[in-house]
Amino acid sequence: MGYGKVDELAINTIRTLAVDATFQANSGHPGAPMGMAPVAHVLFNKFMTFNPKNPDWLNRDRFVLSNGHGCMLQYAILHLFGYGVSMDALKHFRQVDSITPGHPEAHDTPGIEVTTGPLGQGFANAVGLAIAQQHTAGVFNKPNFELINNHTYCFFGDGCSMEGIASEAASLAGHLQLGNLICIYDDNHISIDGDTKVSFTEDVTKRFEAYGWHTQHVEDGDSDLESIEAAIQKAKDVKDKPSVIKLTTTIGFGSKLQGTGGVHGNPLKADDVKQVKEKFGFDPEKTFVVPQEVYDAYHKHASEGAAAEEEWNKLLEKYSGEHKDGASELKRRLSRKLPEGWQNKLPVYKPSDPAVATRKLSESVLEAIHEAVPELLSGSADLTGSNNTRWKNAVDFQPPSTGLGDWSGRYLRYGVREHGMAGIMNGMSAYGTIIPAGGTFLNFVSYAAGSVRLSSLSHQRVIYIATHDSIGLGEDGPTHQPIETLAHFRALPNMMVWRPADGNETSAAYYMALTSHETPSIMALTRQNLPQLEASTLANGNKGGYVALEDKEAKITLVSTGSEVSICLEAVKYLKDNKSIAARVVSMPCTEVFDAQSKDYKLSVIPDGIPTMSVEVMSTLGWEKYSHEQFGLNRFGASGPYKDVYKKFEFTPEGISKRAVLTIDFYKDVKPLRSPINRAFTQLI
Amino acid sequence: MGYGKVDELAINTIRTLAVDATFQANSGHPGAPMGMAPVAHVLFNKFMTFNPKNPDWLNRDRFVLSNGHGCMLQYAILHLFGYGVSMDALKHFRQVDSITPGHPEAHDTPGIEVTTGPLGQGFANAVGLAIAQQHTAGVFNKPNFELINNHTYCFFGDGCSMEGIASEAASLAGHLQLGNLICIYDDNHISIDGDTKVSFTEDVTKRFEAYGWHTQHVEDGDSDLESIEAAIQKAKDVKDKPSVIKLTTTIGFGSKLQGTGGVHGNPLKADDVKQVKEKFGFDPEKTFVVPQEVYDAYHKHASEGAAAEEEWNKLLEKYSGEHKDGASELKRRLSRKLPEGWQNKLPVYKPSDPAVATRKLSESVLEAIHEAVPELLSGSADLTGSNNTRWKNAVDFQPPSTGLGDWSGRYLRYGVREHGMAGIMNGMSAYGTIIPAGGTFLNFVSYAAGSVRLSSLSHQRVIYIATHDSIGLGEDGPTHQPIETLAHFRALPNMMVWRPADGNETSAAYYMALTSHETPSIMALTRQNLPQLEASTLANGNKGGYVALEDKEAKITLVSTGSEVSICLEAVKYLKDNKSIAARVVSMPCTEVFDAQSKDYKLSVIPDGIPTMSVEVMSTLGWEKYSHEQFGLNRFGASGPYKDVYKKFEFTPEGISKRAVLTIDFYKDVKPLRSPINRAFTQLI
Repeated sequence: MGYGKVDELAINTIRTLAVDATFQANSGHPGAPMGMAPVAHVLFNKFMTFNPKNPDWLNRDRFVLSNGHGCMLQYAILHLFGYGVSMDALKHFRQVDSITPGHPEAHDTPGIEVTTGPLGQGFANAVGLAIAQQHTAGVFNKPNFELINNHTYCFFGDGCSMEGIASEAASLAGHLQLGNLICIYDDNHISIDGDTKVSFTEDVTKRFEAYGWHTQHVEDGDSDLESIEAAIQKAKDVKDKPSVIKLTTTIGFGSKLQGTGGVHGNPLKADDVKQVKEKFGFDPEKTFVVPQEVYDAYHKHASEGAAAEEEWNKLLEKYSGEHKDGASELKRRLSRKLPEGWQNKLPVYKPSDPAVATRKLSESVLEAIHEAVPELLSGSADLTGSNNTRWKNAVDFQPPSTGLGDWSGRYLRYGVREHGMAGIMNGMSAYGTIIPAGGTFLNFVSYAAGSVRLSSLSHQRVIYIATHDSIGLGEDGPTHQPIETLAHFRALPNMMVWRPADGNETSAAYYMALTSHETPSIMALTRQNLPQLEASTLANGNKGGYVALEDKEAKITLVSTGSEVSICLEAVKYLKDNKSIAARVVSMPCTEVFDAQSKDYKLSVIPDGIPTMSVEVMSTLGWEKYSHEQFGLNRFGASGPYKDVYKKFEFTPEGISKRAVLTIDFYKDVKPLRSPINRAFTQLI
Repeated sequence: MGYGKVDELAINTIRTLAVDATFQANSGHPGAPMGMAPVAHVLFNKFMTFNPKNPDWLNRDRFVLSNGHGCMLQYAILHLFGYGVSMDALKHFRQVDSITPGHPEAHDTPGIEVTTGPLGQGFANAVGLAIAQQHTAGVFNKPNFELINNHTYCFFGDGCSMEGIASEAASLAGHLQLGNLICIYDDNHISIDGDTKVSFTEDVTKRFEAYGWHTQHVEDGDSDLESIEAAIQKAKDVKDKPSVIKLTTTIGFGSKLQGTGGVHGNPLKADDVKQVKEKFGFDPEKTFVVPQEVYDAYHKHASEGAAAEEEWNKLLEKYSGEHKDGASELKRRLSRKLPEGWQNKLPVYKPSDPAVATRKLSESVLEAIHEAVPELLSGSADLTGSNNTRWKNAVDFQPPSTGLGDWSGRYLRYGVREHGMAGIMNGMSAYGTIIPAGGTFLNFVSYAAGSVRLSSLSHQRVIYIATHDSIGLGEDGPTHQPIETLAHFRALPNMMVWRPADGNETSAAYYMALTSHETPSIMALTRQNLPQLEASTLANGNKGGYVALEDKEAKITLVSTGSEVSICLEAVKYLKDNKSIAARVVSMPCTEVFDAQSKDYKLSVIPDGIPTMSVEVMSTLGWEKYSHEQFGLNRFGASGPYKDVYKKFEFTPEGISKRAVLTIDFYKDVKPLRSPINRAFTQLI
């Protein structure tokens, strides 16, 4: 306690930096930084421990700005503490190739933990960070060695409060009793449509109480630093519940338009900029000013953080002596490298092995590797028995008091909360010690699209186990049968969409998912059984696409994925027997990985000279990239036993053959007939 | 009150029908129908007014089964009341081409109001139906003519409770004080992962209280019919709040596995089927049995409903005498035909008109037509000023007590609740008297993907006004810049994705959206200004794609959309001036509508003989269908002024020209060079 001039100066420095940066960019959101500067100042200086010189220190406190549009608050703070965010970077706020983009991006800016801006995401990420902390503590902490005990702090606004993803994550966080999670709700009554009374009149703290959170209200978030500090301290003292502090603030504090929507998403006008600076005792003619005493105060706290890390390193060293295995395991995890030889555990299949659904094959992978890959933390959005995401002896991640599991448990029951699950997994991945895998039906990965996109954008190694991948799920019908889903996620940059055709391809999918440190994966898996293919090997699968059946006399290449590959192989026999036509088959479990192969290899798979036809029981959109003609399903599916549904839509050897014949005939006069692999130019990536 | 043998018999008839149908299908969910049969019996017979012979009667009470997996409950009830769901249909539950699919589909089954199953959707639909009722009453009711006063009832389970979309919709419903909405929460403590205590321990009724709902708890939902009735009556009596009744039930009531997850998603075993029937006094050897007294009782209530409709028709007739305009307007709306001549209000532009952002042009359309098309109800997910969704003199749809608007208001403030908005719009559209249009950024339509899919599947005329459609939004950066989004929604069957290039194309998009009765639309609109094109007309736009610049000497066709069309036109000049190459340009505002044109027309737009290159600042996925080569953005965007961002990614006349030259060169040896419009076979639709 005891706040004085320097505190006020620091707060106003943050405010004026936000004013200057948004004014200079002629774009951005000054309101939230001006309103939340006081709580940010108190939180970072009185509570948070971190070392700006090593933003990756494991036991640092985590901070998430879920209302990411207010990122000048965060950039200003990172700058003041001496993170790698220079004054020049602040001056290039929202400019091409700066590290200060319009919303915070974890991958590019030191000190930014997670990528936020899309509302509600940061809140879910914070829950994920807190889960990861609790789990990592559960695994590695030992008596007298509280190695992992950081807190996760999150700021969120009215927008985040309204988003369903935040509701989902908050409900789960309450259930999980995450005592180290402290969220501060910026209750400024303003969203883009103006006063929140036009659409948001619920009692937010009561809702959080219903979720099982500890709640408080600080009425004057603009200047009552003591109450802010007391509330955060009280929240820290509550160990068995996550905490929310409703902090009533004035958006754009200091502006002539403070407290109105006018200051939310637009820079202040020139005269208002001057007025603000004068009000705060700053020179109205100068921009981007940081008084030396503010730097001094912030750098002092930064060096305390550096010292804390040093202490922690000593603790870790001591821990290494007494708990050698734990220490080396922790260090290995932080390096993001998997344990030596883990891949030898991946199941391998022979063509004579029985037909099995890829969802079951995925389960076999988890069963086989979970001991070798202890950072893998599986879970499901309430579809455990359908997604096959749980290995037999798995322990649930649950508060020990529930008697249902413990903190070191590696299976998370997300509830029917797909979007929350995905946002939480992004946060868990960002913590650095966990590879999260979460299951739902492929069709409902779409519920989580907002977070899936951020898995990709922020380079998180997250695995989506997406079963019931097509009309092959049968009776549940069109409401559950994906059509557009693979096209959607294949169009997403930095996302591996896997649709394995058998056991070895499923193992390959996991191999690539686990070893691609900066790319998330979606595993599209069948409900129905699939035979083991002749040519399928881990090595072939790892290329994303390969020749499943070669024939030098082939008049056509059939390229297919998942459950349709074996039907294509039957179609080859049908064509040979009934039409005397030779055909070859390509299995393409992951187009993104195939794209990364050499052109020579790709041309050996999809060669010049004969036409290629794709076969997949979903939208054909995008298959033109790999084929001349496409057989797919550009309509919704049907409810019925899956074999009847496949028959209805002609995904049978006969149906494929009929179209193959039409394709061969159609292209016979084209010279040269080039493989679609040949392109006039390459895309910018 | 006063329940007897026939009631018990009816309830057990519903239960055994669900048991038989799921057993025969060897698939489906008997648990929820068995648990909720009592409340369904009470609700439908004591409270709901409807006429099975005319499922479209406007003032019928609406029923939504948000836990749609329990659809045998609904199918059994529809059958018993004499809707067009025969016993044969029940026997073909979950079979191909039956009207009893695995989850309820509004478009195909008489008496099903909305398509449910994806959890949480039905709940949001119910909020939409209640809003539509309240609005329609606000517009058409007159003193002594309470023409529209139906209730909306919704069943929902634990799964729906956990979904964010339901939270969003519930929060808004509380704000809107929707007194005619009554939701019954099936508190059976079971979801697919077993006991809900593993992930769902919040206080649901307290949460609804926080939203502003009236809440009750009926402790014995299995047999206490009197309490169920009393609670529903009390809920009806509360006029200024939506109501939720937490109804504790036993899932799979009667089964040996009752109260466990074993009865949720799997048919009962043969011996359990027998045991259940014996317990309920049914012949264990017989299947699909309906005692005549049950038919009699249900048909009696059905005929009361028919009589109620007759009364209502008389009221409407009397209303027609005193409020002629209102009556004919209401009848017109129900016919789904727009008012005569409305299209003459659509703005028309000349090439010399100034450059304007398509989001502003969209606003001009709304401004121009809102009086002519009174069923249009606009809104935004808290981005009113950015989406430009509000006409100048719009009145908010708000409870009159708030002083912020009234029930007849045609502008809905959805709050930052994209998924909820979309689910609500589906329900509003299903009511029959409204065409809902709702705004958000294109990137955040993805948050609503679950509902957008159901707009398409259930044939709802819903309009998504999706502004900030690309990297052209500039400074907000990659978290807000769509890349995969158009590919996603173009892959969705029965969805028109519009990306207009100027004013006339924007008018065309609205023309098609409003006149396509069974197809939703997404309007992808720019933040930045675009010039008015020479060849752009309403008629051209209505074809989905047309020649924007013809040149008989052209060596290449550039096909483009939205903001890139005018850059392509500049590229043509650049090619002519710098390379002496002639080129032509196609504007393709909506591929789905273009697909529906004649082959001759399509070949006139994208002809044989010269290569076509697509130009769009997003994923190229899918453009191979219309072009030989694709220039797009298969990576995330960048934060900066939009002109800088376009330049960074080479979407400039020079950048386009460079790739056009490479394309021409690449295809010069191919004979014949066919238009991609030519295909070997047509897809099944």
